[in-house]
Amino acid sequence: MNFKDATLPEIDAALREAHIAYLSYKNLGGKKKGEFLRTIADEIGALGNTLIQTAMRETNLPEARVISERGRTTGHCRMFAQLVEEGSWVEARIDSAQPNRTPLPRADLRKMLVPIGPVVVFGAANFPLAYSTAGGDTAAALAAGCPVIVKAHPAHAETSELVAEAIKKAISKTKMPQNIFQHFHGKSFEIGQALVKHPLTKAVGFTGSLAGGKALFDLANQRPEPIPVFAEMSSINPVYLLPESLGRNYDKTALMLASSITQGVGQFCTNPGLMIAVDDDGLKQYIKKLSEEILKTPAGTMLHQGIANNYHKRLAESLAQKGITIEAQATDAGSTMQGRPTVVSVAAKDFLKNPILAEEVFGPFSLIVKCEDVSEFNSIAVHQHGQLTSSIIGEEPEVKKHQNLLNLLKEKAGRLIINGVPTGVEVVPSQNHGGPYPATTDSRFTAVGPDSIKRFARPVSFQNFPDALLPDELKEQNPLNIWRMRDFEWTKK
Amino acid sequence: MNFKDATLPEIDAALREAHIAYLSYKNLGGKKKGEFLRTIADEIGALGNTLIQTAMRETNLPEARVISERGRTTGHCRMFAQLVEEGSWVEARIDSAQPNRTPLPRADLRKMLVPIGPVVVFGAANFPLAYSTAGGDTAAALAAGCPVIVKAHPAHAETSELVAEAIKKAISKTKMPQNIFQHFHGKSFEIGQALVKHPLTKAVGFTGSLAGGKALFDLANQRPEPIPVFAEMSSINPVYLLPESLGRNYDKTALMLASSITQGVGQFCTNPGLMIAVDDDGLKQYIKKLSEEILKTPAGTMLHQGIANNYHKRLAESLAQKGITIEAQATDAGSTMQGRPTVVSVAAKDFLKNPILAEEVFGPFSLIVKCEDVSEFNSIAVHQHGQLTSSIIGEEPEVKKHQNLLNLLKEKAGRLIINGVPTGVEVVPSQNHGGPYPATTDSRFTAVGPDSIKRFARPVSFQNFPDALLPDELKEQNPLNIWRMRDFEWTKK
Repeated sequence: MNFKDATLPEIDAALREAHIAYLSYKNLGGKKKGEFLRTIADEIGALGNTLIQTAMRETNLPEARVISERGRTTGHCRMFAQLVEEGSWVEARIDSAQPNRTPLPRADLRKMLVPIGPVVVFGAANFPLAYSTAGGDTAAALAAGCPVIVKAHPAHAETSELVAEAIKKAISKTKMPQNIFQHFHGKSFEIGQALVKHPLTKAVGFTGSLAGGKALFDLANQRPEPIPVFAEMSSINPVYLLPESLGRNYDKTALMLASSITQGVGQFCTNPGLMIAVDDDGLKQYIKKLSEEILKTPAGTMLHQGIANNYHKRLAESLAQKGITIEAQATDAGSTMQGRPTVVSVAAKDFLKNPILAEEVFGPFSLIVKCEDVSEFNSIAVHQHGQLTSSIIGEEPEVKKHQNLLNLLKEKAGRLIINGVPTGVEVVPSQNHGGPYPATTDSRFTAVGPDSIKRFARPVSFQNFPDALLPDELKEQNPLNIWRMRDFEWTKK
Repeated sequence: MNFKDATLPEIDAALREAHIAYLSYKNLGGKKKGEFLRTIADEIGALGNTLIQTAMRETNLPEARVISERGRTTGHCRMFAQLVEEGSWVEARIDSAQPNRTPLPRADLRKMLVPIGPVVVFGAANFPLAYSTAGGDTAAALAAGCPVIVKAHPAHAETSELVAEAIKKAISKTKMPQNIFQHFHGKSFEIGQALVKHPLTKAVGFTGSLAGGKALFDLANQRPEPIPVFAEMSSINPVYLLPESLGRNYDKTALMLASSITQGVGQFCTNPGLMIAVDDDGLKQYIKKLSEEILKTPAGTMLHQGIANNYHKRLAESLAQKGITIEAQATDAGSTMQGRPTVVSVAAKDFLKNPILAEEVFGPFSLIVKCEDVSEFNSIAVHQHGQLTSSIIGEEPEVKKHQNLLNLLKEKAGRLIINGVPTGVEVVPSQNHGGPYPATTDSRFTAVGPDSIKRFARPVSFQNFPDALLPDELKEQNPLNIWRMRDFEWTKK
């Protein structure tokens, strides 16, 4: 199916309508927003097999993955519903008046988070459901009280259209202001540019390439009124393999990593694209087992031709670098849409000299950096760009000897993992899916979990307000029964 | 006294040293950081009258103001000490492992805020103590665990030097890593540029002009690795005077506003530079009383020649705009360093057409916008730029009729005030000293109060960590006894 690109006048009208819808939506209570978000989840569920089949056809993802991604999408809609129904996410603070303070009396002051305004969300190629139309950005923004304008990813436009219709049904069923969600198609950069540059747009959510995210970030900062862009972009998710443990556990470690590298044809932002190990017998055994597993994994059809072309290009570029050895490469299936799982290795000294090897190869690819000894691990960690994750694989007594490495990695990643792979991102309060640049454009926020709502909210203080004019969250009697910080103490009083 | 400008090699060395100091400072517990911050407060107190006299001489501020600003500065150092000693500011979240979950087990995941890295702070001209060397940015960054490099404001270099020495004494007394605080002078933009562009700088705090803040913001975003800049810049703090109430209370309203406009020669970021009223008899009485008060206020010596020159220039520019009437102007004292309190008025229709009138005139200046009726208040509110504050003055029954105006103002300001003036910024958890651009470069953060620490912290998740390797804040037994969100519930368990 071919969807018409949005026109510039349509975008202008959409933002004006979003702004008007915002002026009523922003003041809706958590209960109503919760009902709306739950209805979105229900309506996505009601699309049934049509949604699954459409997404499979458009993205080449297998059925089990699409079904699980749908579960995650409806799951985060319900999680945000729970968050706003409970209500404490607004970080309410109350400091009582001190009318008799000298030399000057102190006025009653109360503060809470409020929505930031209309948010533009770009659908992500690699998550047709969970990071697209009703994805984490959309759900977080709607939960905060922000209208959303989605630009569908052209690679799964029909899937996006189906989900958009589900959201619109939910708007109608729960009697929300009509234009709190709008949906557009657009193949040209011009459409995205117009959305980001529109004066009524107040924030942007994006998941995709470094080039794409950085371009939007720059546009947003060059506006007469700069706006925040949360772009989740590029990460190679280094995995440090501690040598003593590897010497004992090479088989199970290889199984775990091979699966993480090839899962979903390597098209996860948390794919482990870099492994760091000491060049010893344990590593030889590890590579042997890992190679067997990689060779067993057939080349897979990638999400779309652009991503496949990029994988082939970046793979060829990596293979051409000085000192690279191919350790294992699955058979070429002969289709330009397919990505061959590939593991290569390089000596640490060559890795440290070559910035190309520190860049993401988006697909089922991983590079083993061979170190002379563990002391080189710290040099690799210092050399590392900002990442979503960094992992250490080793038994506890050996991990404990690497506090310094953990200390260094904490500076470079949003999530640290011990004895686990970076793929698999739980949607829970303790999740941080973010990290220093270029993993994201702002390391102070997560893109996954309830705290991701904070990307789209800002504090407002209310000074000397009569109780009746205060938002319910800040009223003296705490009618919503939320957690508040009152005179420096957490309380529901 | 003449202090030497920093050289570029000195700045490079400073950031390298700050980074090294950071690697140990970032892991210090809240108790130790608290002791350090309290000692800074003590050492600033120990400077005694020398500090007061020096600041008075350099800034022309009166003794009472400098003493009160010192109290505020030591006060926020102690407030941040209390915050980090208590420890719950790190927003700890814990989600328990679910080893038996199907299809996949869930790993233990824990999250907390950690420091962002070395922070560059620019001393503010208008707060030689509270927003300069040991000001709110410095104290927040040090509390978060970030080393600070201060560039002193050249207008109060000696004051800055004294406070820097106090901080260095506190470092030595509490045995902190030596280079967690460094202090430089620099009159050229080149120095500030080098500090912001250095690859080891991870965030910037700035309070000053729109041009200055925006230049630093742009520099930071154009780095190979963009970094966050929190710049607090420009605000005219509109005050809406509701007509029925003004008709009754013009005298006391005029006294309150006259004092707020002229306080500190108008050199507060929260100075009320705009008043909006209906052009009726009540307003005539209000202007009469306000003018009397303004004429009683002598011209005051401004902070430095640059600020005074800028005031004279912007004042002349405003007076030359179409439709401007001078309502009251204090006598010219004949010195180019002095700012004459000035109140002018203009019809709403002329105001709405002229963007120059919506820009800040930093000094003891305020513009009254005369509306034909209250319905024009909403047009002014929509027209308003982002502000630190917006105020409504009126009796409760009349304020209640203006919910729509409050709703509009919430979009444009960080703090809303009823029946009060914007000057006077309490340092409490409920304070939001921030607001939409151009008030600041990021409306999601406050520059005052304990929450301002979040400008300099970012979340990190710890997945599947043995308890012994977790930071104390996240250990199973909660040894620090802090508030944590555990499986979606707030608890100290």
